[in-house]
Amino acid sequence: MLEKVDLSLAVKNNEYKENIKTLEVKLAELQRKAWELKIPVIFVFEGWHASGMREDINRFILPLDPRGYDFYPMTLECYEDALKPFLLHFWALTPVRGRIAILDRSWYSRAIIKHFRKEQSEEKLGRCLEEINWFEHQFSDNGYLILKFFLHISKKEQEDRLKEIKKKGIPLILDGYEKKNGKENGKEIDFINEYNEYLPVVENVLEKTDMSYAPWTIVEANDRNFAALKIITTAKQAIESHIEQVTRTPVQQTIKYLDIPISKLPELNGSVLDKVDLSKTISSETYDESKKFYQQKLETLQYELFKKKRSMIIIFEGWDAAGKGGDIHRLVEELNPRLYRVVPVGPPNDIERAHHFLWRFCEGIPKAGHITIFDRSWYGRVLVERVERLCSEGEWKRAYREINEFENILTGTGAVILKLWLHIDKDTQLERFKNRQNDPDKSWKITEDDWRNRSKWNEYKIAVDEMLQKTSTVNAQWIVVESNDKRYSRMKIMKTVTEALEKELKT
Amino acid sequence: MLEKVDLSLAVKNNEYKENIKTLEVKLAELQRKAWELKIPVIFVFEGWHASGMREDINRFILPLDPRGYDFYPMTLECYEDALKPFLLHFWALTPVRGRIAILDRSWYSRAIIKHFRKEQSEEKLGRCLEEINWFEHQFSDNGYLILKFFLHISKKEQEDRLKEIKKKGIPLILDGYEKKNGKENGKEIDFINEYNEYLPVVENVLEKTDMSYAPWTIVEANDRNFAALKIITTAKQAIESHIEQVTRTPVQQTIKYLDIPISKLPELNGSVLDKVDLSKTISSETYDESKKFYQQKLETLQYELFKKKRSMIIIFEGWDAAGKGGDIHRLVEELNPRLYRVVPVGPPNDIERAHHFLWRFCEGIPKAGHITIFDRSWYGRVLVERVERLCSEGEWKRAYREINEFENILTGTGAVILKLWLHIDKDTQLERFKNRQNDPDKSWKITEDDWRNRSKWNEYKIAVDEMLQKTSTVNAQWIVVESNDKRYSRMKIMKTVTEALEKELKT
Repeated sequence: MLEKVDLSLAVKNNEYKENIKTLEVKLAELQRKAWELKIPVIFVFEGWHASGMREDINRFILPLDPRGYDFYPMTLECYEDALKPFLLHFWALTPVRGRIAILDRSWYSRAIIKHFRKEQSEEKLGRCLEEINWFEHQFSDNGYLILKFFLHISKKEQEDRLKEIKKKGIPLILDGYEKKNGKENGKEIDFINEYNEYLPVVENVLEKTDMSYAPWTIVEANDRNFAALKIITTAKQAIESHIEQVTRTPVQQTIKYLDIPISKLPELNGSVLDKVDLSKTISSETYDESKKFYQQKLETLQYELFKKKRSMIIIFEGWDAAGKGGDIHRLVEELNPRLYRVVPVGPPNDIERAHHFLWRFCEGIPKAGHITIFDRSWYGRVLVERVERLCSEGEWKRAYREINEFENILTGTGAVILKLWLHIDKDTQLERFKNRQNDPDKSWKITEDDWRNRSKWNEYKIAVDEMLQKTSTVNAQWIVVESNDKRYSRMKIMKTVTEALEKELKT
Repeated sequence: MLEKVDLSLAVKNNEYKENIKTLEVKLAELQRKAWELKIPVIFVFEGWHASGMREDINRFILPLDPRGYDFYPMTLECYEDALKPFLLHFWALTPVRGRIAILDRSWYSRAIIKHFRKEQSEEKLGRCLEEINWFEHQFSDNGYLILKFFLHISKKEQEDRLKEIKKKGIPLILDGYEKKNGKENGKEIDFINEYNEYLPVVENVLEKTDMSYAPWTIVEANDRNFAALKIITTAKQAIESHIEQVTRTPVQQTIKYLDIPISKLPELNGSVLDKVDLSKTISSETYDESKKFYQQKLETLQYELFKKKRSMIIIFEGWDAAGKGGDIHRLVEELNPRLYRVVPVGPPNDIERAHHFLWRFCEGIPKAGHITIFDRSWYGRVLVERVERLCSEGEWKRAYREINEFENILTGTGAVILKLWLHIDKDTQLERFKNRQNDPDKSWKITEDDWRNRSKWNEYKIAVDEMLQKTSTVNAQWIVVESNDKRYSRMKIMKTVTEALEKELKT
């Protein structure tokens, strides 16, 4: 993509001055309009070292209202980030609807630098790019406008500019650079890079990630005026056409009712839940023994997980009153609180709602060596949000793929994912609801929501069955836990977690 | 405080079991009650290495509802934190009203470790403790319940336990420990510490920070049962008595009207604003020259600031239409966007409102080497929140001290603070408002709020004068910028910032 670029393009000072003011006013106006329409925008700047990114970005952000954008200068991957999938860092930075995120280098530089550090084989770069495509696709699907600029200069131009920078004594402003004394993993950080060596890799990256939903704009940056004008003009046009698109087809509504009630959909699929044997029980003695046995094992295994730098995500989903709280309690009773975390998931707040639905879970994803237990999770999208019509049909249908990709990103960096559906029958639920109501210490646990959910049992059942089918993937299987008998349920969970850890840590 | 502690205290297993269940149920109930009453709680756990903190904390958190607390295990100070005042890291962790924060080691361990690394002289530890007292006092004043536990064991007991830990092969779980290969600043991290060497320092810290509003509870931890019971009982009693206090004297209302209108308060103080000479102007030629001159200087100085690891905070406050936006634009026009940041400050959102009012500013405080420009700031507390009665009289009156302490913490670690009040007269404001309304590109800038604020000019003037007096401190002076003439205003600001940087960077 870079070979045929005409780097002789230039714009004279007076031409630049004539045009820039109008464009700046227009851009500011578009920013306000995007804010009103709640369109989230991501601008990615990449380019050669010394291609003038700092000047161009400063020119670009000056006309913008600082209340509406966030600027993220590149940082070297910090230790914390390195303990999590590399895209999560960026996932967390994505803007709320209506805001603009401007990235001065991004996931692309991370992927390229990783590649050159030989931390990654050719194959691994490919995998990174695949994950990047999933990521950008998901955000585009969620209404994000993604624009990517690559600032291109010639080798000769780069050399001249580097001399100039050195002469002026301008330091390299790169977060984490000094900390590592210019080294990462003991290797020199080579930003004054070998142009010829980088070129084919950059070409490969640009080519594999130039998507209609997130296109690359190559900016001829030998001439500053030309570059600045091209960036602002491209941005202006892209926002305009995105606004036009959004206002033509009305903005996707978050709440959209299905035409036919879910309960009337034909049941052409077999039900996983129907085949679960809920009569399983164990005796109190067997339970006490196995509890002691597994809790001791788990105490040891958590340290193994820590030493081997693996991580674990345990997702608890299930019917109301299926016993999630008690099950989690038994599971963590002997664990070290520095290594595990329980993340309870309720309805999203306003800020979370204004993000991609997976955004709010980024923070809870465990670092290498740690365990996170999600008490409810991102599966709310295809359960409560589907049944209660809190998202559109398109949104929950798309969510199966989005969740699978997200989990694939997590397991790709060594996370073990266990997904537990705690299954009880309707009678057992009723009995437990009544018990809770009659117990003064527990009555706070039961709310009208619980009764309302119960009245939609059949709709939930269809949603659960579809979820179990569509999101049981090779590396992240669902396990249905028979939970009519609390002891059986607890024992099975402790056993399942123990065995999963033993299996994973053996290799 | 530790010398007279009776470490032979113990509780038998059956006694423990008889009592713990009731206490756990009670604690869970109190957690729910604190949530309803929106009481924020901070539990600090400190203690000797191997004093059993992990077990005791796990026992303590198990009965709590995970939806209502956050647990923060200790981390070694990371690079990012080291570039900011050490308390800011913890300030950011403080809970919203109604939630509980549980800290497994805290600002105390940080201060003690710093001391032993010889990064700090005796005097510096004293300064740390002073800042800690400010911090805890502020949060207590803001309705936070702060409880601090010190888990105490004997030297002999510690030795026995360390042997046991070693035998079992339990790794040290400390965030950042492995990253640094057990070293920090090249020195071995000595957690298996010299008990006798630490003792007098710990004694000193406990003594200097045992305040009525944030008392220490020494926990005799040779016996696990005793420790667990003492912690839960103390917590229970403290929450109960805090609840009683809060419900007796009704909760401080956020919105409380003054009995007499501010405008009728006698003006016994001289006015700073009245003495400002607003007739100052400069010619367009002088302006163009000095703009070029100072912008170039600033471009160089920002790199000096970066190299010398100092930071700068520039606060812009002023009348509506005083020209903040344009002034900031000129100031940053030639700066490197990786080194400066503009943080626009509007009304707090719901989450921010549920925190200490300074909480939301922690994130924007610049790291060493960087510049943050606040377009409006924490001074909103004593300006708009005071005049519009968005906080109680007690709150804004207390805020002068709170702000001075906060800024003192910032300058204490090398930040340069410049506070600019952009002053115009009422006629100039009216003229600018009208111009804005008539210009289609600018009419969006003017809202009803502006007219409403204008109608309260005199009340604002009193608030501004009081602010200028009470928060001009030795290291963080206010500068009134005569802004009737926009060119004069811009020039003075660039000059002021330049000179402040030159002065600070010379030393």
